Amino acid sequence: MDWGMIDRYSKSLIKEAGHRIRVSFAREIHIDTKDDANDLVTDIDRDIEQFFISRIRRDFPDHRILGEEGFGDKVETNDGVIWILDPIDGTMNFVHQKRNFAISLGVYADGIGMLGYIYDVMADDFYHAVRGGGAYRNDERLPQLEPTPLAEAVIGVNASWVCPNRYVDHEPVIRLVQDCRGTRSYGSAAIELAHVAAGRLDAYLSMRLAPWDIAGGSVIVGEVGAVTTDLRGEEHDMLTKGTFIAARPGLHETILGDYVRLKE
Amino acid sequence: MDWGMIDRYSKSLIKEAGHRIRVSFAREIHIDTKDDANDLVTDIDRDIEQFFISRIRRDFPDHRILGEEGFGDKVETNDGVIWILDPIDGTMNFVHQKRNFAISLGVYADGIGMLGYIYDVMADDFYHAVRGGGAYRNDERLPQLEPTPLAEAVIGVNASWVCPNRYVDHEPVIRLVQDCRGTRSYGSAAIELAHVAAGRLDAYLSMRLAPWDIAGGSVIVGEVGAVTTDLRGEEHDMLTKGTFIAARPGLHETILGDYVRLKE
Repeated sequence: MDWGMIDRYSKSLIKEAGHRIRVSFAREIHIDTKDDANDLVTDIDRDIEQFFISRIRRDFPDHRILGEEGFGDKVETNDGVIWILDPIDGTMNFVHQKRNFAISLGVYADGIGMLGYIYDVMADDFYHAVRGGGAYRNDERLPQLEPTPLAEAVIGVNASWVCPNRYVDHEPVIRLVQDCRGTRSYGSAAIELAHVAAGRLDAYLSMRLAPWDIAGGSVIVGEVGAVTTDLRGEEHDMLTKGTFIAARPGLHETILGDYVRLKE
Repeated sequence: MDWGMIDRYSKSLIKEAGHRIRVSFAREIHIDTKDDANDLVTDIDRDIEQFFISRIRRDFPDHRILGEEGFGDKVETNDGVIWILDPIDGTMNFVHQKRNFAISLGVYADGIGMLGYIYDVMADDFYHAVRGGGAYRNDERLPQLEPTPLAEAVIGVNASWVCPNRYVDHEPVIRLVQDCRGTRSYGSAAIELAHVAAGRLDAYLSMRLAPWDIAGGSVIVGEVGAVTTDLRGEEHDMLTKGTFIAARPGLHETILGDYVRLKE
């Protein structure tokens, strides 16, 4: 497989999609709802996913596509090449803020992340990585992450996980919030993973993420030495929804060992 | 008082300070700590505050200055003109992220906010308002805020206020997090107030803010119709630290009435 060629192809596709999103702000955004009111989806999400899928199917007919909006393939195994796409990660930000959302794309071969992309469209910040080739923000290579003690760590975690919930005991999460230096929440897993890659967040965790939220970001943060697993400490399955953490080495073990107690 | 002249003067001063901050990134940032490890302060905070104070004292010798770093005046009354300054709001972001911090300045006359400024230095986003003249982001006038129901509101609130704390009962805050559409936390009161002004956050609340965190932002959000008070619902005192909320009309009453229970 010529990953250099696929890398150039992907970058070009993502930049074109970003341009389409920016011009689409000129017209009214039609807001629809999926399962519940918090899960906003827009015409633009769907249009952008269909744009990606039509191009990838034309140019790589034997690859499969797993996309948030469901226009891709029904993917039940890791075999072959799978493009894992979120056309607009952070849809609530997209609707409410018209910024702070990202295109997220990971390209996996037999379950191994080969290419990763996060494009913060409105900031025009493009994070990208080829497996084994380091991670970049635009043209700048991102340095390897050094260990940081929890007391000096800024952690991406949403307030909802500090409330009683069905995934983790919230009492240890309260201790985590109190023991770290500070917490942030940006409303886009992809953007929070970009912050981890750039050293702006020392860890990011969430209790309910889909493959397309983290497929691109996992490749990128892995290239700068962050550890990514589910909250049991096992490799995150790229075919199902579940828990997730990305953190600097050392900090990952501290958080999982001392602050996470899963309910199931 | 020629507020138009002071407005032009302030904008010019803030832009020059922003430039000084950007060039200072070229040299090493010396990180010091004040009361505790979470309260970071840098050489640059102090240098920028002294830059403002030396200029304002030279050009407005009968005005007083209240600044975070303490180089200003000891201000115990609201009489006359008071410049309330945070040279770098969001110091933790400044240190950890080198972005997402702001210069915050409010100019008050006998306790009334006349001029307000928030300059997101790295994004080069400048929010400004003259009392009665509307609020602007750069050259664009910000529209008046319409009421939003809580179920559709995105609220700026840090996870630490969902944990047990000495200011408010955290149980109603848990309900607030669960009843709204989503929460965000950006780590800078000034930037969160800019988001409220621009309609990107529907409310922002915190249990422990200083006058310089909110002096500029209060003027700006007031010009687009946001309601700002302390968490007792009373006018925020610009001379002391305390609780604070800024929210769209209606939402302000809902949050204070149903979700805030002060301990003192």
